[in-house]
Amino acid sequence: MNQTATLPSPPLPGEKRLENIRIVLSHTSHPGNIGAVARAMKTMGLSRLTLVNPKNFPDDEAMRRAVGADDILQRATVCDSLDAALADTLIALAVSARHRSLGPAPRSAREAAPEVLELTGSGEVALVFGNETSGLSNFEVQRCQRTVFIPANPEYTSLNLASAVQLICYELRQAAFDGNPPLFTKAIPFASPRATHEDVERFHAHLERVMIATGFLDPQQPKRLLPKLRRLFARTQLERDEINILRGILDAVEKRIGH
Amino acid sequence: MNQTATLPSPPLPGEKRLENIRIVLSHTSHPGNIGAVARAMKTMGLSRLTLVNPKNFPDDEAMRRAVGADDILQRATVCDSLDAALADTLIALAVSARHRSLGPAPRSAREAAPEVLELTGSGEVALVFGNETSGLSNFEVQRCQRTVFIPANPEYTSLNLASAVQLICYELRQAAFDGNPPLFTKAIPFASPRATHEDVERFHAHLERVMIATGFLDPQQPKRLLPKLRRLFARTQLERDEINILRGILDAVEKRIGH
Repeated sequence: MNQTATLPSPPLPGEKRLENIRIVLSHTSHPGNIGAVARAMKTMGLSRLTLVNPKNFPDDEAMRRAVGADDILQRATVCDSLDAALADTLIALAVSARHRSLGPAPRSAREAAPEVLELTGSGEVALVFGNETSGLSNFEVQRCQRTVFIPANPEYTSLNLASAVQLICYELRQAAFDGNPPLFTKAIPFASPRATHEDVERFHAHLERVMIATGFLDPQQPKRLLPKLRRLFARTQLERDEINILRGILDAVEKRIGH
Repeated sequence: MNQTATLPSPPLPGEKRLENIRIVLSHTSHPGNIGAVARAMKTMGLSRLTLVNPKNFPDDEAMRRAVGADDILQRATVCDSLDAALADTLIALAVSARHRSLGPAPRSAREAAPEVLELTGSGEVALVFGNETSGLSNFEVQRCQRTVFIPANPEYTSLNLASAVQLICYELRQAAFDGNPPLFTKAIPFASPRATHEDVERFHAHLERVMIATGFLDPQQPKRLLPKLRRLFARTQLERDEINILRGILDAVEKRIGH
Protein backbone atom coordinates (compact mmCIF):
# COMPACT_ATOMS: atom_id res chain seq x y z
CA MET A 1 0.00 0.00 0.00
CA ASN A 2 2.84 2.33 0.80
CA GLN A 3 3.50 4.23 -2.39
CA THR A 4 6.01 6.76 -1.08
CA ALA A 5 9.53 6.77 -2.41
CA THR A 6 11.13 6.59 1.07
CA LEU A 7 12.81 3.38 2.13
CA PRO A 8 10.62 1.09 4.21
CA SER A 9 11.35 1.31 7.95
CA PRO A 10 12.51 -1.92 9.61
CA PRO A 11 9.58 -4.05 10.79
CA LEU A 12 8.51 -3.57 14.39
CA PRO A 13 8.25 -6.63 16.60
CA GLY A 14 4.77 -8.12 16.88
CA GLU A 15 3.91 -6.68 20.30
CA LYS A 16 4.82 -3.14 19.21
CA ARG A 17 2.74 -3.51 16.08
CA LEU A 18 -0.33 -4.58 18.04
CA GLU A 19 0.06 -1.41 20.13
CA ASN A 20 -0.51 0.60 16.94
CA ILE A 21 -4.02 -0.81 16.50
CA ARG A 22 -6.92 1.28 17.80
CA ILE A 23 -10.21 -0.43 18.57
CA VAL A 24 -13.06 2.07 18.07
CA LEU A 25 -16.51 1.30 19.50
CA SER A 26 -19.26 3.55 18.19
CA HIS A 27 -22.45 4.21 20.18
CA THR A 28 -22.13 1.19 22.46
CA SER A 29 -25.34 0.69 24.48
CA HIS A 30 -24.22 -1.68 27.25
CA PRO A 31 -21.25 -0.73 29.43
CA GLY A 32 -20.74 -4.43 30.25
CA ASN A 33 -19.83 -4.97 26.60
CA ILE A 34 -17.19 -2.23 26.81
CA GLY A 35 -15.58 -4.08 29.73
CA ALA A 36 -15.76 -7.40 27.88
CA VAL A 37 -14.13 -5.75 24.86
CA ALA A 38 -11.24 -4.48 27.03
CA ARG A 39 -10.70 -8.02 28.30
CA ALA A 40 -10.86 -9.47 24.78
CA MET A 41 -8.32 -6.89 23.54
CA LYS A 42 -5.88 -7.53 26.37
CA THR A 43 -5.90 -11.31 25.88
CA MET A 44 -4.58 -10.64 22.37
CA GLY A 45 -2.09 -7.90 23.30
CA LEU A 46 -4.05 -4.86 22.10
CA SER A 47 -4.39 -1.83 24.37
CA ARG A 48 -5.81 1.24 22.61
CA LEU A 49 -9.56 1.67 23.04
CA THR A 50 -11.55 4.65 21.74
CA LEU A 51 -15.26 5.11 22.44
CA VAL A 52 -17.57 7.26 20.30
CA ASN A 53 -20.58 8.45 22.30
CA PRO A 54 -20.94 5.44 24.60
CA LYS A 55 -24.32 5.40 26.37
CA ASN A 56 -22.74 4.92 29.82
CA PHE A 57 -19.04 5.36 30.46
CA PRO A 58 -17.19 5.23 32.82
CA ASP A 59 -19.36 2.62 34.49
CA ASP A 60 -19.06 0.01 37.26
CA GLU A 61 -20.42 -2.81 35.08
CA ALA A 62 -17.71 -2.08 32.49
CA MET A 63 -15.03 -2.30 35.19
CA ARG A 64 -16.52 -5.51 36.55
CA ARG A 65 -16.57 -7.24 33.16
CA ALA A 66 -13.02 -6.09 32.31
CA VAL A 67 -11.56 -8.49 34.95
CA GLY A 68 -7.96 -7.30 35.13
CA ALA A 69 -8.11 -5.36 31.87
CA ASP A 70 -9.32 -2.22 33.65
CA ASP A 71 -6.05 -0.48 32.69
CA ILE A 72 -7.38 -0.43 29.13
CA LEU A 73 -10.65 1.16 30.29
CA GLN A 74 -8.74 3.75 32.34
CA ARG A 75 -6.69 4.77 29.31
CA ALA A 76 -9.69 4.69 26.92
CA THR A 77 -10.42 7.85 24.94
CA VAL A 78 -14.01 9.09 24.68
CA CYS A 79 -14.94 11.12 21.57
CA ASP A 80 -18.12 12.74 20.36
CA SER A 81 -17.63 11.91 16.68
CA LEU A 82 -16.14 9.14 14.56
CA ASP A 83 -13.87 11.68 12.85
CA ALA A 84 -12.39 12.62 16.22
CA ALA A 85 -11.93 8.93 17.04
CA LEU A 86 -10.08 8.38 13.76
CA ALA A 87 -7.79 11.41 14.15
CA ASP A 88 -4.13 10.60 13.33
CA THR A 89 -4.88 7.12 12.01
CA LEU A 90 -3.48 5.99 8.66
CA ILE A 91 -6.47 3.92 7.73
CA ALA A 92 -9.75 2.75 9.26
CA LEU A 93 -11.47 -0.60 8.74
CA ALA A 94 -15.20 -0.98 9.35
CA VAL A 95 -16.12 -4.32 10.91
CA SER A 96 -19.53 -5.18 9.50
CA ALA A 97 -21.54 -8.30 8.75
CA ARG A 98 -23.71 -6.50 6.22
CA HIS A 99 -22.44 -6.06 2.71
CA ARG A 100 -23.31 -2.73 1.17
CA SER A 101 -23.46 -1.85 -2.48
CA LEU A 102 -21.41 1.28 -1.83
CA GLY A 103 -18.43 1.40 0.48
CA PRO A 104 -15.14 -0.47 0.35
CA ALA A 105 -14.96 -4.08 -0.85
CA PRO A 106 -15.36 -6.43 2.13
CA ARG A 107 -12.67 -8.91 3.11
CA SER A 108 -12.67 -11.60 5.77
CA ALA A 109 -10.82 -11.02 9.04
CA ARG A 110 -8.17 -13.56 8.08
CA GLU A 111 -7.58 -11.97 4.69
CA ALA A 112 -7.48 -8.44 6.11
CA ALA A 113 -5.20 -9.06 9.12
CA PRO A 114 -1.82 -9.19 7.32
CA GLU A 115 -2.43 -5.85 5.59
CA VAL A 116 -3.45 -4.23 8.88
CA LEU A 117 -0.27 -5.47 10.51
CA GLU A 118 1.85 -4.24 7.65
CA LEU A 119 0.33 -0.77 7.96
CA THR A 120 1.00 -0.63 11.70
CA GLY A 121 4.67 -0.35 10.74
CA SER A 122 3.89 3.19 9.50
CA GLY A 123 1.35 4.41 12.09
CA GLU A 124 -1.96 3.75 13.77
CA VAL A 125 -4.73 1.70 12.22
CA ALA A 126 -8.34 1.77 13.46
CA LEU A 127 -10.90 -1.03 13.52
CA VAL A 128 -14.41 0.34 13.95
CA PHE A 129 -17.29 -1.59 15.55
CA GLY A 130 -20.90 -0.34 15.60
CA ASN A 131 -23.76 -0.41 18.06
CA GLU A 132 -24.83 -3.82 19.43
CA THR A 133 -28.24 -3.75 17.75
CA SER A 134 -27.96 -1.54 14.70
CA GLY A 135 -24.28 -2.04 13.76
CA LEU A 136 -22.46 0.66 11.83
CA SER A 137 -24.41 3.22 9.83
CA ASN A 138 -23.67 3.73 6.13
CA PHE A 139 -22.23 7.12 7.09
CA GLU A 140 -19.79 5.43 9.46
CA VAL A 141 -18.78 2.72 6.97
CA GLN A 142 -18.08 5.37 4.36
CA ARG A 143 -15.68 7.10 6.75
CA CYS A 144 -13.54 3.94 6.57
CA GLN A 145 -11.27 2.78 3.75
CA ARG A 146 -11.92 -0.95 4.14
CA THR A 147 -14.68 -3.29 5.30
CA VAL A 148 -13.90 -6.44 7.26
CA PHE A 149 -16.35 -9.22 8.05
CA ILE A 150 -16.29 -12.30 10.22
CA PRO A 151 -17.48 -15.33 8.25
CA ALA A 152 -20.31 -16.45 10.56
CA ASN A 153 -23.15 -18.93 10.12
CA PRO A 154 -25.41 -17.43 7.42
CA GLU A 155 -28.48 -18.63 9.37
CA TYR A 156 -27.38 -16.79 12.52
CA THR A 157 -24.82 -14.03 12.24
CA SER A 158 -25.61 -12.47 15.62
CA LEU A 159 -22.09 -12.17 17.07
CA ASN A 160 -21.86 -10.52 20.46
CA LEU A 161 -19.85 -7.25 20.27
CA ALA A 162 -17.06 -8.54 22.53
CA SER A 163 -16.96 -11.81 20.56
CA ALA A 164 -16.50 -9.89 17.32
CA VAL A 165 -13.67 -7.86 18.86
CA GLN A 166 -12.18 -11.08 20.26
CA LEU A 167 -12.10 -12.78 16.85
CA ILE A 168 -10.66 -9.74 15.07
CA CYS A 169 -7.97 -9.25 17.73
CA TYR A 170 -7.14 -12.96 17.56
CA GLU A 171 -6.58 -12.78 13.82
CA LEU A 172 -4.45 -9.65 14.28
CA ARG A 173 -2.32 -11.40 16.91
CA GLN A 174 -1.89 -14.43 14.65
CA ALA A 175 -0.83 -12.11 11.81
CA ALA A 176 1.48 -10.10 14.10
CA PHE A 177 3.48 -13.22 14.84
CA ASP A 178 2.99 -15.04 11.51
CA GLY A 179 0.84 -17.66 13.19
CA ASN A 180 3.41 -18.32 15.94
CA PRO A 181 2.67 -15.95 18.83
CA PRO A 182 4.84 -16.37 21.94
CA LEU A 183 3.26 -18.65 24.53
CA PHE A 184 2.82 -18.35 28.25
CA THR A 185 4.91 -21.40 28.99
CA LYS A 186 6.91 -23.65 26.75
CA ALA A 187 5.10 -26.86 26.06
CA ILE A 188 6.65 -29.85 27.80
CA PRO A 189 4.82 -32.47 25.78
CA PHE A 190 6.66 -35.51 27.12
CA ALA A 191 8.46 -36.34 30.32
CA SER A 192 10.67 -39.02 28.82
CA PRO A 193 12.70 -39.46 25.62
CA ARG A 194 11.51 -41.73 22.84
CA ALA A 195 12.35 -45.40 23.17
CA THR A 196 14.96 -46.69 20.75
CA HIS A 197 14.33 -49.40 18.19
CA GLU A 198 16.14 -51.96 20.39
CA ASP A 199 14.05 -51.05 23.47
CA VAL A 200 10.89 -51.58 21.46
CA GLU A 201 12.11 -54.90 20.04
CA ARG A 202 13.06 -56.20 23.51
CA PHE A 203 9.57 -55.22 24.71
CA HIS A 204 7.90 -57.10 21.85
CA ALA A 205 10.01 -60.21 22.56
CA HIS A 206 9.11 -59.98 26.25
CA LEU A 207 5.41 -59.56 25.48
CA GLU A 208 5.49 -62.56 23.15
CA ARG A 209 7.14 -64.75 25.86
CA VAL A 210 4.47 -63.75 28.40
CA MET A 211 1.62 -64.33 25.97
CA ILE A 212 2.95 -67.82 25.28
CA ALA A 213 3.56 -68.50 28.99
CA THR A 214 -0.01 -67.46 29.85
CA GLY A 215 -1.43 -69.61 27.06
CA PHE A 216 -2.90 -66.59 25.24
CA LEU A 217 -0.66 -67.06 22.22
CA ASP A 218 -0.29 -70.48 20.62
CA PRO A 219 3.05 -70.35 18.75
CA GLN A 220 1.71 -73.02 16.34
CA GLN A 221 -1.37 -70.89 15.56
CA PRO A 222 -0.17 -67.30 15.99
CA LYS A 223 -2.69 -65.93 13.47
CA ARG A 224 -2.18 -62.16 13.09
CA LEU A 225 -1.77 -61.38 16.77
CA LEU A 226 1.86 -60.26 16.70
CA PRO A 227 1.61 -57.91 13.70
CA LYS A 228 -1.58 -56.41 15.19
CA LEU A 229 0.22 -55.65 18.46
CA ARG A 230 3.17 -54.24 16.53
CA ARG A 231 0.88 -51.91 14.63
CA LEU A 232 -0.77 -50.73 17.84
CA PHE A 233 2.53 -49.87 19.54
CA ALA A 234 3.99 -48.37 16.38
CA ARG A 235 1.19 -45.80 16.43
CA THR A 236 1.79 -44.83 20.05
CA GLN A 237 5.52 -44.14 19.53
CA LEU A 238 6.54 -45.48 22.89
CA GLU A 239 8.76 -43.56 25.31
CA ARG A 240 11.54 -45.07 27.38
CA ASP A 241 9.58 -44.69 30.65
CA GLU A 242 6.56 -46.33 29.09
CA ILE A 243 8.64 -49.33 27.97
CA ASN A 244 9.91 -49.65 31.53
CA ILE A 245 6.35 -49.62 32.87
CA LEU A 246 5.11 -52.17 30.33
CA ARG A 247 8.07 -54.50 30.91
CA GLY A 248 7.54 -54.09 34.67
CA ILE A 249 4.00 -55.38 34.21
CA LEU A 250 5.28 -58.30 32.13
CA ASP A 251 7.91 -59.09 34.81
CA ALA A 252 5.22 -59.09 37.48
CA VAL A 253 3.05 -61.44 35.43
CA GLU A 254 5.99 -63.80 34.86
CA LYS A 255 6.80 -63.82 38.56
CA ARG A 256 3.16 -64.50 39.47
CA ILE A 257 2.81 -67.41 37.06
CA GLY A 258 6.16 -68.83 38.14
CA HIS A 259 8.29 -68.27 35.00
CA MET B 1 -6.15 -41.48 12.31
CA ASN B 2 -8.56 -44.04 10.91
CA GLN B 3 -6.62 -47.31 10.83
CA THR B 4 -9.45 -49.64 9.80
CA ALA B 5 -9.27 -51.46 6.52
CA THR B 6 -12.71 -50.29 5.34
CA LEU B 7 -12.91 -47.75 2.56
CA PRO B 8 -13.20 -44.15 3.74
CA SER B 9 -16.75 -42.80 3.54
CA PRO B 10 -17.23 -39.78 1.27
CA PRO B 11 -16.57 -36.51 3.11
CA LEU B 12 -19.59 -34.83 4.65
CA PRO B 13 -20.30 -31.22 3.71
CA GLY B 14 -19.00 -28.61 6.16
CA GLU B 15 -22.31 -27.92 7.90
CA LYS B 16 -22.89 -31.62 8.60
CA ARG B 17 -19.39 -31.99 9.96
CA LEU B 18 -19.87 -29.10 12.39
CA GLU B 19 -22.99 -30.88 13.69
CA ASN B 20 -20.72 -33.74 14.78
CA ILE B 21 -18.81 -31.52 17.21
CA ARG B 22 -19.89 -31.58 20.85
CA ILE B 23 -19.02 -28.62 23.09
CA VAL B 24 -18.67 -29.84 26.68
CA LEU B 25 -18.67 -27.29 29.53
CA SER B 26 -17.54 -28.72 32.84
CA HIS B 27 -18.64 -27.19 36.16
CA THR B 28 -19.64 -23.81 34.75
CA SER B 29 -20.35 -21.33 37.56
CA HIS B 30 -22.26 -18.55 35.77
CA PRO B 31 -25.39 -19.43 33.79
CA GLY B 32 -24.92 -16.23 31.75
CA ASN B 33 -21.76 -17.78 30.34
CA ILE B 34 -23.68 -20.88 29.25
CA GLY B 35 -26.05 -18.64 27.29
CA ALA B 36 -23.16 -16.71 25.76
CA VAL B 37 -21.54 -20.03 24.76
CA ALA B 38 -24.75 -21.13 23.00
CA ARG B 39 -24.75 -17.87 21.05
CA ALA B 40 -21.05 -18.23 20.17
CA MET B 41 -21.62 -21.80 18.96
CA LYS B 42 -24.59 -20.90 16.80
CA THR B 43 -22.77 -18.04 15.05
CA MET B 44 -20.28 -20.66 13.83
CA GLY B 45 -22.82 -23.37 12.95
CA LEU B 46 -22.30 -25.67 15.97
CA SER B 47 -25.31 -26.98 17.85
CA ARG B 48 -24.46 -29.76 20.34
CA LEU B 49 -23.94 -28.54 23.89
CA THR B 50 -23.30 -30.83 26.87
CA LEU B 51 -23.03 -29.55 30.44
CA VAL B 52 -21.26 -31.41 33.24
CA ASN B 53 -22.60 -30.37 36.66
CA PRO B 54 -23.44 -26.76 35.84
CA LYS B 55 -24.03 -24.67 38.98
CA ASN B 56 -27.37 -23.31 37.70
CA PHE B 57 -29.15 -24.73 34.67
CA PRO B 58 -31.72 -24.23 33.22
CA ASP B 59 -31.64 -20.56 34.11
CA ASP B 60 -33.24 -17.30 32.95
CA GLU B 61 -29.90 -15.49 32.66
CA ALA B 62 -28.63 -18.24 30.35
CA MET B 63 -31.71 -17.82 28.14
CA ARG B 64 -31.33 -14.05 28.13
CA ARG B 65 -27.69 -14.16 27.07
CA ALA B 66 -28.34 -16.77 24.36
CA VAL B 67 -30.25 -14.18 22.23
CA GLY B 68 -31.85 -16.36 19.59
CA ALA B 69 -29.62 -19.37 20.30
CA ASP B 70 -32.01 -20.67 22.96
CA ASP B 71 -32.72 -23.71 20.76
CA ILE B 72 -29.19 -24.88 21.61
CA LEU B 73 -29.88 -24.46 25.34
CA GLN B 74 -33.16 -26.34 25.03
CA ARG B 75 -31.43 -29.28 23.36
CA ALA B 76 -28.43 -29.20 25.73
CA THR B 77 -27.62 -32.41 27.62
CA VAL B 78 -26.82 -32.22 31.33
CA CYS B 79 -24.52 -34.94 32.78
CA ASP B 80 -23.14 -35.64 36.22
CA SER B 81 -19.71 -36.80 35.05
CA LEU B 82 -17.26 -36.05 32.26
CA ASP B 83 -17.31 -39.72 31.22
CA ALA B 84 -21.06 -39.51 30.67
CA ALA B 85 -20.58 -36.30 28.68
CA LEU B 86 -18.00 -38.01 26.45
CA ALA B 87 -20.09 -41.13 25.84
CA ASP B 88 -20.12 -42.18 22.16
CA THR B 89 -17.47 -39.69 21.12
CA LEU B 90 -14.49 -40.79 19.03
CA ILE B 91 -12.06 -38.44 20.66
CA ALA B 92 -12.05 -35.60 23.18
CA LEU B 93 -9.89 -32.48 23.13
CA ALA B 94 -9.22 -30.53 26.32
CA VAL B 95 -9.12 -26.76 25.78
CA SER B 96 -6.59 -25.46 28.27
CA ALA B 97 -4.22 -22.52 28.57
CA ARG B 98 -2.01 -24.38 31.03
CA HIS B 99 0.56 -26.78 29.72
CA ARG B 100 1.00 -29.89 31.82
CA SER B 101 3.99 -32.17 31.92
CA LEU B 102 1.72 -35.19 31.59
CA GLY B 103 -1.27 -35.33 29.32
CA PRO B 104 -1.44 -35.02 25.55
CA ALA B 105 0.88 -32.70 23.65
CA PRO B 106 -0.79 -29.30 23.24
CA ARG B 107 -1.52 -27.81 19.84
CA SER B 108 -2.91 -24.43 18.90
CA ALA B 109 -6.56 -24.09 17.86
CA ARG B 110 -5.52 -23.42 14.27
CA GLU B 111 -3.27 -26.48 14.12
CA ALA B 112 -5.84 -28.74 15.77
CA ALA B 113 -8.93 -27.71 13.77
CA PRO B 114 -8.27 -29.65 10.54
CA GLU B 115 -7.76 -32.94 12.42
CA VAL B 116 -10.99 -32.39 14.39
CA LEU B 117 -12.90 -31.80 11.17
CA GLU B 118 -11.40 -34.88 9.56
CA LEU B 119 -12.50 -37.01 12.52
CA THR B 120 -16.07 -35.67 12.35
CA GLY B 121 -16.38 -37.66 9.14
CA SER B 122 -16.33 -40.83 11.31
CA GLY B 123 -18.34 -39.73 14.36
CA GLU B 124 -18.65 -37.22 17.18
CA VAL B 125 -15.73 -35.22 18.55
CA ALA B 126 -15.83 -33.41 21.90
CA LEU B 127 -14.13 -30.16 22.91
CA VAL B 128 -14.01 -29.80 26.68
CA PHE B 129 -13.90 -26.45 28.52
CA GLY B 130 -13.37 -26.12 32.29
CA ASN B 131 -14.70 -23.91 35.04
CA GLU B 132 -14.38 -20.11 34.56
CA THR B 133 -11.95 -19.70 37.44
CA SER B 134 -10.11 -22.98 37.90
CA GLY B 135 -10.15 -24.33 34.32
CA LEU B 136 -9.94 -28.08 33.75
CA SER B 137 -8.53 -30.37 36.44
CA ASN B 138 -5.65 -32.72 35.64
CA PHE B 139 -8.15 -35.57 35.98
CA GLU B 140 -10.35 -34.00 33.30
CA VAL B 141 -7.44 -33.30 30.92
CA GLN B 142 -6.28 -36.91 31.24
CA ARG B 143 -9.73 -38.09 30.15
CA CYS B 144 -9.02 -36.37 26.81
CA GLN B 145 -6.74 -37.55 23.99
CA ARG B 146 -5.55 -34.10 22.90
CA THR B 147 -4.94 -30.66 24.40
CA VAL B 148 -5.74 -27.50 22.48
CA PHE B 149 -4.74 -23.99 23.47
CA ILE B 150 -5.58 -20.52 22.25
CA PRO B 151 -2.38 -18.51 21.74
CA ALA B 152 -3.21 -15.53 23.96
CA ASN B 153 -1.10 -12.67 25.32
CA PRO B 154 1.39 -14.32 27.74
CA GLU B 155 0.97 -11.33 30.10
CA TYR B 156 -2.81 -11.79 30.28
CA THR B 157 -4.29 -15.10 29.21
CA SER B 158 -7.64 -14.54 30.97
CA LEU B 159 -10.02 -15.40 28.13
CA ASN B 160 -13.70 -15.30 29.00
CA LEU B 161 -15.29 -18.78 28.69
CA ALA B 162 -17.62 -17.74 25.86
CA SER B 163 -14.71 -16.00 24.10
CA ALA B 164 -12.67 -19.19 24.24
CA VAL B 165 -15.59 -21.18 22.81
CA GLN B 166 -16.08 -18.47 20.16
CA LEU B 167 -12.46 -18.67 18.99
CA ILE B 168 -12.39 -22.46 18.90
CA CYS B 169 -15.70 -22.66 17.01
CA TYR B 170 -14.44 -20.00 14.58
CA GLU B 171 -11.34 -22.05 13.79
CA LEU B 172 -13.50 -25.16 13.36
CA ARG B 173 -15.79 -23.32 10.95
CA GLN B 174 -12.81 -22.04 8.97
CA ALA B 175 -11.45 -25.59 8.79
CA ALA B 176 -14.87 -27.05 7.88
CA PHE B 177 -14.97 -24.90 4.77
CA ASP B 178 -11.22 -24.77 4.05
CA GLY B 179 -11.14 -21.07 4.90
CA ASN B 180 -14.09 -20.22 2.63
CA PRO B 181 -17.29 -20.59 4.65
CA PRO B 182 -20.51 -19.64 2.85
CA LEU B 183 -21.54 -16.04 3.47
CA PHE B 184 -24.84 -14.46 4.36
CA THR B 185 -25.04 -12.42 1.20
CA LYS B 186 -22.82 -12.29 -1.79
CA ALA B 187 -20.57 -9.29 -1.70
CA ILE B 188 -21.57 -6.62 -4.20
CA PRO B 189 -18.39 -4.61 -3.90
CA PHE B 190 -19.06 -2.17 -6.69
CA ALA B 191 -22.13 -0.82 -8.39
CA SER B 192 -20.48 -0.08 -11.71
CA PRO B 193 -18.12 -1.88 -14.10
CA ARG B 194 -14.49 -0.87 -14.39
CA ALA B 195 -13.69 1.97 -16.72
CA THR B 196 -11.84 1.02 -19.92
CA HIS B 197 -8.43 2.32 -20.85
CA GLU B 198 -9.98 4.78 -23.32
CA ASP B 199 -12.41 6.15 -20.71
CA VAL B 200 -9.50 6.78 -18.37
CA GLU B 201 -7.41 8.43 -21.09
CA ARG B 202 -10.29 10.72 -22.08
CA PHE B 203 -10.65 11.68 -18.43
CA HIS B 204 -6.96 12.51 -18.11
CA ALA B 205 -7.10 14.62 -21.28
CA HIS B 206 -10.18 16.42 -19.95
CA LEU B 207 -8.55 17.03 -16.58
CA GLU B 208 -5.43 18.43 -18.25
CA ARG B 209 -7.52 20.86 -20.36
CA VAL B 210 -9.33 22.13 -17.29
CA MET B 211 -6.13 22.51 -15.28
CA ILE B 212 -4.65 24.56 -18.08
CA ALA B 213 -7.85 26.61 -18.49
CA THR B 214 -7.94 27.42 -14.77
CA GLY B 215 -4.26 28.38 -14.79
CA PHE B 216 -3.32 25.61 -12.35
CA LEU B 217 -1.13 23.85 -14.92
CA ASP B 218 1.39 25.79 -16.96
CA PRO B 219 2.02 23.67 -20.09
CA GLN B 220 5.48 25.25 -20.38
CA GLN B 221 6.32 24.19 -16.77
CA PRO B 222 4.30 21.01 -16.20
CA LYS B 223 6.77 19.63 -13.65
CA ARG B 224 5.60 16.19 -12.47
CA LEU B 225 1.94 17.11 -12.05
CA LEU B 226 0.53 14.89 -14.79
CA PRO B 227 2.40 11.69 -13.87
CA LYS B 228 1.51 12.25 -10.19
CA LEU B 229 -2.20 12.48 -11.06
CA ARG B 230 -1.88 9.42 -13.28
CA ARG B 231 -0.35 7.45 -10.41
CA LEU B 232 -3.14 8.52 -8.05
CA PHE B 233 -5.93 7.42 -10.39
CA ALA B 234 -4.11 4.25 -11.40
CA ARG B 235 -4.24 3.16 -7.76
CA THR B 236 -7.98 3.78 -7.43
CA GLN B 237 -8.88 1.68 -10.52
CA LEU B 238 -11.67 3.95 -11.63
CA GLU B 239 -15.13 2.70 -12.49
CA ARG B 240 -17.27 3.90 -15.38
CA ASP B 241 -19.72 5.76 -13.10
CA GLU B 242 -16.85 7.46 -11.32
CA ILE B 243 -15.38 8.66 -14.62
CA ASN B 244 -18.80 10.10 -15.48
CA ILE B 245 -18.95 11.95 -12.16
CA LEU B 246 -15.41 13.31 -12.47
CA ARG B 247 -15.97 14.44 -16.07
CA GLY B 248 -19.27 15.99 -14.98
CA ILE B 249 -17.36 18.07 -12.46
CA LEU B 250 -14.84 19.09 -15.14
CA ASP B 251 -17.70 20.01 -17.53
CA ALA B 252 -19.27 22.18 -14.83
CA VAL B 253 -15.97 23.93 -14.16
CA GLU B 254 -15.48 24.59 -17.90
CA LYS B 255 -18.98 26.01 -18.20
CA ARG B 256 -18.47 28.24 -15.15
CA ILE B 257 -15.17 29.69 -16.41
CA GLY B 258 -16.62 30.17 -19.88
CA HIS B 259 -14.67 27.59 -21.91
